[in-house]
Amino acid sequence: VGSLPAYTPGRPGATPPPTALGELTGQLSPGQVLVPPEDLARYETDVLGRRGSAAWVARPRDTAEVRRVVQWAYRHRASFVVQGANTGPVRAGIPDASGHQGVLSTELCRGTLVIDAVDRTVTVSAGIDLATLNEALAEHHLTLPIDLGANPTIGGMVGANTGGARLIRHGDVRRHVLGLEVVLPDEAATVLPLQRGLRKDNRGPDVKQLFVGSSGTLGVVTMAVLSVDLLPRQSAVALVEPVTDSAMVELLTLLEHRHGEQVTAFEMLSRGALEAIARHRTPDVRWPFGSELPPDVILLVELSSSDAAGSIHRDFVDSLTETIEVARQAGHVANAWFGPPQQLWALRHMAINAIMGEGALVAFDLSTTRSALVDLRRQARDLVAHLAPGTRCIDFGHVGDGGLHLVVIWPDAGKAADREVEQRAVHDAVYDLVESLGGTSSAEHGIGPENIDALRRHTPQGLWNLQRACKAMCDPLDLLGSLTFGP
Amino acid sequence: VGSLPAYTPGRPGATPPPTALGELTGQLSPGQVLVPPEDLARYETDVLGRRGSAAWVARPRDTAEVRRVVQWAYRHRASFVVQGANTGPVRAGIPDASGHQGVLSTELCRGTLVIDAVDRTVTVSAGIDLATLNEALAEHHLTLPIDLGANPTIGGMVGANTGGARLIRHGDVRRHVLGLEVVLPDEAATVLPLQRGLRKDNRGPDVKQLFVGSSGTLGVVTMAVLSVDLLPRQSAVALVEPVTDSAMVELLTLLEHRHGEQVTAFEMLSRGALEAIARHRTPDVRWPFGSELPPDVILLVELSSSDAAGSIHRDFVDSLTETIEVARQAGHVANAWFGPPQQLWALRHMAINAIMGEGALVAFDLSTTRSALVDLRRQARDLVAHLAPGTRCIDFGHVGDGGLHLVVIWPDAGKAADREVEQRAVHDAVYDLVESLGGTSSAEHGIGPENIDALRRHTPQGLWNLQRACKAMCDPLDLLGSLTFGP
Repeated sequence: VGSLPAYTPGRPGATPPPTALGELTGQLSPGQVLVPPEDLARYETDVLGRRGSAAWVARPRDTAEVRRVVQWAYRHRASFVVQGANTGPVRAGIPDASGHQGVLSTELCRGTLVIDAVDRTVTVSAGIDLATLNEALAEHHLTLPIDLGANPTIGGMVGANTGGARLIRHGDVRRHVLGLEVVLPDEAATVLPLQRGLRKDNRGPDVKQLFVGSSGTLGVVTMAVLSVDLLPRQSAVALVEPVTDSAMVELLTLLEHRHGEQVTAFEMLSRGALEAIARHRTPDVRWPFGSELPPDVILLVELSSSDAAGSIHRDFVDSLTETIEVARQAGHVANAWFGPPQQLWALRHMAINAIMGEGALVAFDLSTTRSALVDLRRQARDLVAHLAPGTRCIDFGHVGDGGLHLVVIWPDAGKAADREVEQRAVHDAVYDLVESLGGTSSAEHGIGPENIDALRRHTPQGLWNLQRACKAMCDPLDLLGSLTFGP
Repeated sequence: VGSLPAYTPGRPGATPPPTALGELTGQLSPGQVLVPPEDLARYETDVLGRRGSAAWVARPRDTAEVRRVVQWAYRHRASFVVQGANTGPVRAGIPDASGHQGVLSTELCRGTLVIDAVDRTVTVSAGIDLATLNEALAEHHLTLPIDLGANPTIGGMVGANTGGARLIRHGDVRRHVLGLEVVLPDEAATVLPLQRGLRKDNRGPDVKQLFVGSSGTLGVVTMAVLSVDLLPRQSAVALVEPVTDSAMVELLTLLEHRHGEQVTAFEMLSRGALEAIARHRTPDVRWPFGSELPPDVILLVELSSSDAAGSIHRDFVDSLTETIEVARQAGHVANAWFGPPQQLWALRHMAINAIMGEGALVAFDLSTTRSALVDLRRQARDLVAHLAPGTRCIDFGHVGDGGLHLVVIWPDAGKAADREVEQRAVHDAVYDLVESLGGTSSAEHGIGPENIDALRRHTPQGLWNLQRACKAMCDPLDLLGSLTFGP
């Protein structure tokens, strides 16, 4: 594996000449195409402040306009990335540094939002964001139960196959995708009409699945048909301090065996995450831990149900209280805090922004089996302490589904060159570790220049060959995305 | 679309010569390879009694033996089908009539069944059947909640992406597949090690999804890692007679808004299905309708939960009774019957075998949106009455997820040639109808010679091209399955 070619950042190609850019501008209405020297910074800079360089930005409003941009790009061999709300952390949605790439932003593709309440489905344009969608769904007591700190577009969520904080019960985006409309970057800008919203449909190899979780490298998702769920009618949330790390897993098993599908979240915040939240929290978010040092680890546990005819809210709180007491008596739980669900969730959702303010960092989006998570957590911290002694490790995430967001922070500015060497070493070592524990280096943020090298290093050749073949099949000129699917 | 080449039953090729068959026999232990004149009928005949002709049958026991068979087939250009428990009705698992094809049966691939109770996952060999798996899982209070009348192998279920009677809450097989091991029919018999059991894992295009629902046309699934659920702890079941067909949909909406995720089944049996069940039922299954004519349509409605700490069984029955009374007062429900869940489910599960005993038939595995289902049902019956006046239409199925099993029966033996003409006409017309209503001709039984022509006729060229490319990418010599993916 060591002898395989490494990922080459930046892609071969050339910046489209002014005549080509003029032609692109003519494809759409005024204001929909931006080219330098206009300010493109918003499309070039990602959520962690990393910046690429865009040769052009096109903002089509619908599928027909997307096709015009794609056909233009095909004619001019113009490489580009697809960008939604630009909330992704793996640099899949921003151009690379070469200056050759353009950006196809779907931010104006917001024309369709059609709810079928009987079918419990919604047909939605790729550029509509999650909050807008859920606001519209709420009028029908429906929700797309993908729970995130950010507010991405539906197209971006399909690209990353977003998981989020309620996957343990509601699953990932893939589970909700019943149909897609995709424009392929081929000569005809073929539209794949995969948008039948059927719950059961097995007409041959289900190629729409390839576009879920492939981070915009295979085609431009323009529309999705999503299966949506009933809004919860009752819930109870608690913050729970486990006695030890391994007690986390014991508590999870106990909760599931007592409450089954009502366990809708099992999230972890380490002390480092809590401290960052304490420093960055807004005054409307109550701090439950007084002036003491927050616990080493806190679990946010939620029970909820969309049953409106059964037990009432009070029962859920009682029920959760009782289970936590059972867990305390079994020696798994040290302490617990109850509170209004919204307040406790606000703490959890602040984690990522709070941590991003803490300094130079390397962020990992890991997952493994629930059984191996405690080992991953411990070994990763030991490894980082060894390789980069001056750093702090902050972790948090979706313990209930094996997810772990690990962030390594260099608080001291120090010498940038030294830091870069350390960052590289930490980056490689953590990816190798998660691999050795049977986990993944890309849990729910997709693939991009940030993690493609780890992916390549650990993907067996036979599987990589198929992934490359998928790329060639959908994107024959290799126009889309910042990744090189080399041999 | 009319000018596209039709599906050609039977595949080009030749029967492997005796020397090649001798070589195959040498690859496995005695008794694992069967060739004529041994009796191969069990592997040649499907659940509806249709028969192909097998040149050979190989029964490998594990992945290494599967690879030996596949490599042998590649060397000799020997076409074959993959067969599990041979419960499928679309002829995907039996050889065609040419006599050239072999059968790779996974019935002996039963070596692995490893439950990780903490992770709520199971790693299972492809040849293990659903009942065996669920028996082992039950010891841990776990279940693979795919509810079927048949008892297929796990490999077969992955191939068909089986749905079943509890999809409305638990989803299809795809939702439960966290990992697969697949042997590709290429020169190396490449093993795709896609068997990490991760709930969140997005390392590039997720090619394992291609093997789910592609009916054994792309590779040989040898192992699966499945996410499994907690066993239900409480449930209530009722048979409900809706006032009209459209009241079915109203009742479904009402149920979901009152009970949310607790609605775990919403199944339909038409009078014809009930009559067939009455004729074929075993004495241990109680008949709830007395001596009267059974209702025109019956819905089997189930509420259930794996919550062990909340409401008790009695509450669920009360809760369902109350909702049915609300629905009766709203004018949706004419009558309802309660009873032990097992007894009522037994009626539902007898449907397919009972109906298969009713005469010569054509069976459809349709689905559409829940909103369009009533229209599909009515129009299909009208169409069949018009095209084949002497027939009876029996339908039943998964109304809650848009699924409809429609069976057309020719009770009168009549002239076989006339019947065949009618059958062809009904076959084409129903597939065109479901297409025109935005539905699918392959809901949950997979694709095979039985429905590939409808699939081809209604698949847009751009999508078909991708499906063909997937086939070429995985199966370069076109060895696998009875389908021709022509241009």
